Amino acid sequence: MDNFIYETPTKVYFGRETENMVGKLIKETGAKKVLIHYGGSSAIKSGLIDRVKKLLEEESLEYVELGGVLANPELSMVRKGIEICKENNVDFVLAIGGGSVLDSAKDIANGVANPDVDVWDFSTQKASPKASLKKAAILTISAAGSEMSNSCVITNSETKEKRGYGSSFNRMDFAIENPELTYTVNAYQTACGAVDIAMHTIERFFCPGEDTYLTDAVAIAVIKSVMKAGVDSINDPEDYTARANMMWASSLAHNGLTQCGRSFQLVVHQLEHELSGMYPSIAHGAGLAALWCSWARYVYSANIPRWLQFAHEVHNVDIDYEHPEVSILEAIDRQENYYRSINMPTRISELGVKEEDLETLALGCTRNRSRVLSGYRKLDYEDVLAIYKMAL
Amino acid sequence: MDNFIYETPTKVYFGRETENMVGKLIKETGAKKVLIHYGGSSAIKSGLIDRVKKLLEEESLEYVELGGVLANPELSMVRKGIEICKENNVDFVLAIGGGSVLDSAKDIANGVANPDVDVWDFSTQKASPKASLKKAAILTISAAGSEMSNSCVITNSETKEKRGYGSSFNRMDFAIENPELTYTVNAYQTACGAVDIAMHTIERFFCPGEDTYLTDAVAIAVIKSVMKAGVDSINDPEDYTARANMMWASSLAHNGLTQCGRSFQLVVHQLEHELSGMYPSIAHGAGLAALWCSWARYVYSANIPRWLQFAHEVHNVDIDYEHPEVSILEAIDRQENYYRSINMPTRISELGVKEEDLETLALGCTRNRSRVLSGYRKLDYEDVLAIYKMAL
Repeated sequence: MDNFIYETPTKVYFGRETENMVGKLIKETGAKKVLIHYGGSSAIKSGLIDRVKKLLEEESLEYVELGGVLANPELSMVRKGIEICKENNVDFVLAIGGGSVLDSAKDIANGVANPDVDVWDFSTQKASPKASLKKAAILTISAAGSEMSNSCVITNSETKEKRGYGSSFNRMDFAIENPELTYTVNAYQTACGAVDIAMHTIERFFCPGEDTYLTDAVAIAVIKSVMKAGVDSINDPEDYTARANMMWASSLAHNGLTQCGRSFQLVVHQLEHELSGMYPSIAHGAGLAALWCSWARYVYSANIPRWLQFAHEVHNVDIDYEHPEVSILEAIDRQENYYRSINMPTRISELGVKEEDLETLALGCTRNRSRVLSGYRKLDYEDVLAIYKMAL
Repeated sequence: MDNFIYETPTKVYFGRETENMVGKLIKETGAKKVLIHYGGSSAIKSGLIDRVKKLLEEESLEYVELGGVLANPELSMVRKGIEICKENNVDFVLAIGGGSVLDSAKDIANGVANPDVDVWDFSTQKASPKASLKKAAILTISAAGSEMSNSCVITNSETKEKRGYGSSFNRMDFAIENPELTYTVNAYQTACGAVDIAMHTIERFFCPGEDTYLTDAVAIAVIKSVMKAGVDSINDPEDYTARANMMWASSLAHNGLTQCGRSFQLVVHQLEHELSGMYPSIAHGAGLAALWCSWARYVYSANIPRWLQFAHEVHNVDIDYEHPEVSILEAIDRQENYYRSINMPTRISELGVKEEDLETLALGCTRNRSRVLSGYRKLDYEDVLAIYKMAL
């Protein structure tokens, strides 16, 4: 087991009607002026934004608002948010939405608190935040895990780059998680969310590391639970149990719990970020599903025992120890069948990715051949290109 | 799934040599003067106390020390600690030890920061802390989970009362967990620790609640992992993997993770606190093991499905749905056999408890018949007495 630091300071208020506490909770932090940050029109139509405004007013909190965050949150929106905060002396950023809104809010809060740094330097890891504004989230879609994570992923549409960075300053001060607020998430987005949550844990499960059987067992618990919760949520969008288990899985999958004692790099995420960076209409979860099985078939031979554990514990495959690869490929097929069962793609061509773009994607993912993706099997430019080709 | 608040602010530094960071980490909090609080002579003999002193000196931190905390930490020691802190303007309490030392340190930190309240009023729940000193732990035994928990259990030897209270102010600011520091924990104390850790989670698993399948799966992960880690640690005290998984299980079992969405009361813990309150030589883990099977056989019929889940998922019992009680009793027998396999008692008479004390114990546990222990089956005075008699 590797040494690790475990840090999950975000306080979570989970359950029905918890969003009604938001005014009081922000007031308790001593904040005076709030940026309400959100995405498209659904949060307005549902009345949530108006309810939040009223709750802030009841606590005599001032606010400004900035909506319109896109699915792959844009650097330009972050810059706009920073300007608004500076002009209005905002001291608290409240994100209402899913991972994109939350990441945009994190980057805004970091940008305001580090005025001498260009905010894009955080994403390109040329600089690290040294402070941040206080911030919180009201979660309306279970997927990215941004509500408890230390990560922030921003897209620079000018350069077509999508880049993530980790920092303790990316942790929300608190997160409000009411599963009922996700009842209106449609089947496709729900499926994308289930893929993303499971992938946060599956990827960590396959990071190099040894002798972490407690972490492994917790990871398996999260993977199996969210795979079930995803299907149940799609079948009955107002199934509270399903929505609640999925929402809590979102937080546990990406807050650090499932990586304790193991090294950390989200390889399939890196492959996917290039896709949705180049094709912004690709939903992150769909991109992950479309890539995972090809990645799996390309890398599994580098650690047969680990993949057998996955086969047995996640997919209940009876292991054929004389032909272990048969059992592993059976498990990968079952994972692929799961994706198909929730109408997720299993090939990137289904998402409109063109063959002529694959080299550009592989160059981007390996930062022009300067980066090797780590894992039990290291992946250089040729490997990454091979996986994109397999996935086409 | 019930609404819940999840709060785990304690930052954990886990792994080999992490105790070497302690001076730097305390310095970063801005503290000036540290109370080094510890138990018996083992921490001195091992050289750990001297190493810590040197690390504090290297950061120009002043310190005073108070050793001698007993296995069931005493109110009188807490009062002494509070006096020392006041006299010396201590602003940071560093606990070096296990749950007893950590709980004593928490109560001291709370007592100093709430000078208008008698510290015993926290334990009897007549008052709640409104502040606390900064505090941290270097853990040297995996058992109580106090390093990440919000609980604090103190014994008043004058009144023979052992009482626990929960508070956000009972959370350590940080915890240093080096599994190698537990290599010297003997087989008996290691077994007691494994019982205590598993029990923190088993008890939560049997708290009333529904539709928490993610929490359930995480709980099963913790229970099975610590049962394995306990045996392995006893068989080879310097098995890093076993000690590490056990130590991390200690933290996860009692930080709130395994109760998310379920109600919370540790019933067997309440039964046991009376035992070791009256017989201070009884180790908490041993008392739990001696009581659990009798409690289990007394209450299981109140929730057959839940006990079947335990039987199947923890003990791999093939369920006989026509005679479910057979499967459940088989699982309880297996748990009992596990305790015996690690030389834990399964009857309180083995711990020297006398029949003539059982009524006094039951009166204490039910606060003179004024308290009913909650759970799927409520337990009043007569029930509690019946369990003590079964366990004799």
